[in-house]
Amino acid sequence: MRAALMYAAGDVRVGHVADPVVKEPTDALVRITAACICGSDLHPYHSMSASGGPVRMGHEFIGVVEETGNQVASVKKGDLVVAPFAYSDGTCEYCRAGLQTSCVHGGFWARNGIDGGQGEAARVPLADGTLVKLPVGADDALIPSLLTLSDVLGTGHHAAVRGGVRQGSTVTVIGDGAVGLLAVLASKRLGAEQIVLMGRHTARTDLGRAFGATDVVAEREADGIEKVRELTGGGSPIVIEAVGHRPAYEQAYGVVRPGGTISRVGAPQYEDAPIGFGSLFGHNITLTGGPAPARAYIDELLPDVLEGRIEPGRVFDRAVGLDAVPDGYRAMDAREALKVLVRP
Amino acid sequence: MRAALMYAAGDVRVGHVADPVVKEPTDALVRITAACICGSDLHPYHSMSASGGPVRMGHEFIGVVEETGNQVASVKKGDLVVAPFAYSDGTCEYCRAGLQTSCVHGGFWARNGIDGGQGEAARVPLADGTLVKLPVGADDALIPSLLTLSDVLGTGHHAAVRGGVRQGSTVTVIGDGAVGLLAVLASKRLGAEQIVLMGRHTARTDLGRAFGATDVVAEREADGIEKVRELTGGGSPIVIEAVGHRPAYEQAYGVVRPGGTISRVGAPQYEDAPIGFGSLFGHNITLTGGPAPARAYIDELLPDVLEGRIEPGRVFDRAVGLDAVPDGYRAMDAREALKVLVRP
Repeated sequence: MRAALMYAAGDVRVGHVADPVVKEPTDALVRITAACICGSDLHPYHSMSASGGPVRMGHEFIGVVEETGNQVASVKKGDLVVAPFAYSDGTCEYCRAGLQTSCVHGGFWARNGIDGGQGEAARVPLADGTLVKLPVGADDALIPSLLTLSDVLGTGHHAAVRGGVRQGSTVTVIGDGAVGLLAVLASKRLGAEQIVLMGRHTARTDLGRAFGATDVVAEREADGIEKVRELTGGGSPIVIEAVGHRPAYEQAYGVVRPGGTISRVGAPQYEDAPIGFGSLFGHNITLTGGPAPARAYIDELLPDVLEGRIEPGRVFDRAVGLDAVPDGYRAMDAREALKVLVRP
Repeated sequence: MRAALMYAAGDVRVGHVADPVVKEPTDALVRITAACICGSDLHPYHSMSASGGPVRMGHEFIGVVEETGNQVASVKKGDLVVAPFAYSDGTCEYCRAGLQTSCVHGGFWARNGIDGGQGEAARVPLADGTLVKLPVGADDALIPSLLTLSDVLGTGHHAAVRGGVRQGSTVTVIGDGAVGLLAVLASKRLGAEQIVLMGRHTARTDLGRAFGATDVVAEREADGIEKVRELTGGGSPIVIEAVGHRPAYEQAYGVVRPGGTISRVGAPQYEDAPIGFGSLFGHNITLTGGPAPARAYIDELLPDVLEGRIEPGRVFDRAVGLDAVPDGYRAMDAREALKVLVRP
């Protein structure tokens, strides 16, 4: 079958890979009907060395079940399913606690011999714990919004949940990528009253306003921090960091209010960063977040998508076939596209 | 009057300083009857350069009110009072939220022209917001335990509260200094069921057991981490870091369970540290804590001390007069003494 492969930074190609087969009785084979490119896919697109490639790509997909192992009970051939960006057994202590990204038997797509989402099909390990059946057809108009359940909507929601957003909250969201915009939507959905979006791409921040942002701050660094502190009367009690680069984290502790919380969902592209007296400790700032257990949130978010109360699929502003995936990376990297839908 | 002064690392002397006077109508003058040396005083004792000295020392004290400014209403001449380690107005947004260490008009002792606790007397700014009257005499047998309300008991309690300790919790406490031991006591008081104390000084860890530790791990680094992960069945859901040095923080993310919380109360002697995918982010670890709003906790903790349900004063294993404060620093630094009480 054909799948996207990253050979090195800036070098994505579509090539032939082995057809997936059922290996374990808990596997399902899924023919992928909708996938996408993630902001986090741009991190290796910027930095991957050729010695690490080629690697499979993609971790968000919807597809049709083609075959199941004999222990799979929750989905069957012909079902349309969505896969969260981590597979998980659904039964371990962490899955039961709603932290499927730490599942003891789980893992992430496109690593360690596991298929990626940017391809024609995928072997899905632990299908019962991982897949969720969708009550629509593969060509339904809701597919873009349903696809966000696999990562970006769940991730935005996770950011808001971990940040403690509730009725009346004031939240600042750093980053106008798809995750940042859906963190705005998720914060609004949970009742936030003031939502400050930090971003400087008007088309994106306009969508952020449509999703519920009450203020947009285009300034960066010290100017941006001052502006947010002014807008929030001395600092934002909740700050969502939806980028993953260290300057965004520095902005986060710059705008957070004493006693407040920074919730990170942008996969950090750094390991060490300031957490001492002058950044987090002195004013009792809480730092939280991590990879969203998207699987845990599907039950809660799916009805809102199906009934049209939220339209997270608006983050997709371009759709391509598998052949054009390399150009999709280029367009997202050049910020010509916010998020690219792939129809293999 | 006489007070302790630090001239440089390892060089503490008792010298003469100006007698404090009421400067503001919100001030109180307090004649100090009991003070102490804090583990955090050892940080400058290890690192202070001579160019920074001499500086006043001490931030924990009990004393008798000698005089008050004309706006002070809550304490009067003759009252025995305890001062938390930060002074605060008691009325600003942060004080009302119980975060007095971020008071907009407050500050810390022994800095910026403010008196320290290791001396004969102190001018107390914002006396109404800061001081709490004690219903005992200055020579009461409870004085050592009451003195811990000014910092170490409140700090141990803050660590437990921020960590989310409740009935049935499993907690690991890193550090067998006074704060670590009182974090054990506070965790036990809040209902923790398993309390693992990491420390290797038997006299201290024995006191930790008396305070409620169920397990003691003397090993450090990888061995210590392995032992704690084994004892807690895969990692501790709550970890209290009561040291402040980076290796203790590294131990904290080594022993914490996925989805767990690290609560820091040891003043960090570092600014940058790991918070990326491999330390905090990957398993959704929350990092919290900071300077304890000891003032906020006195109302809750005082009855337990007065009625003898807890005996936090057991952390004091030596008492000295003002003249012997330099030797007190030496003894604490040499780990001959756990915590030194000062009777000026």
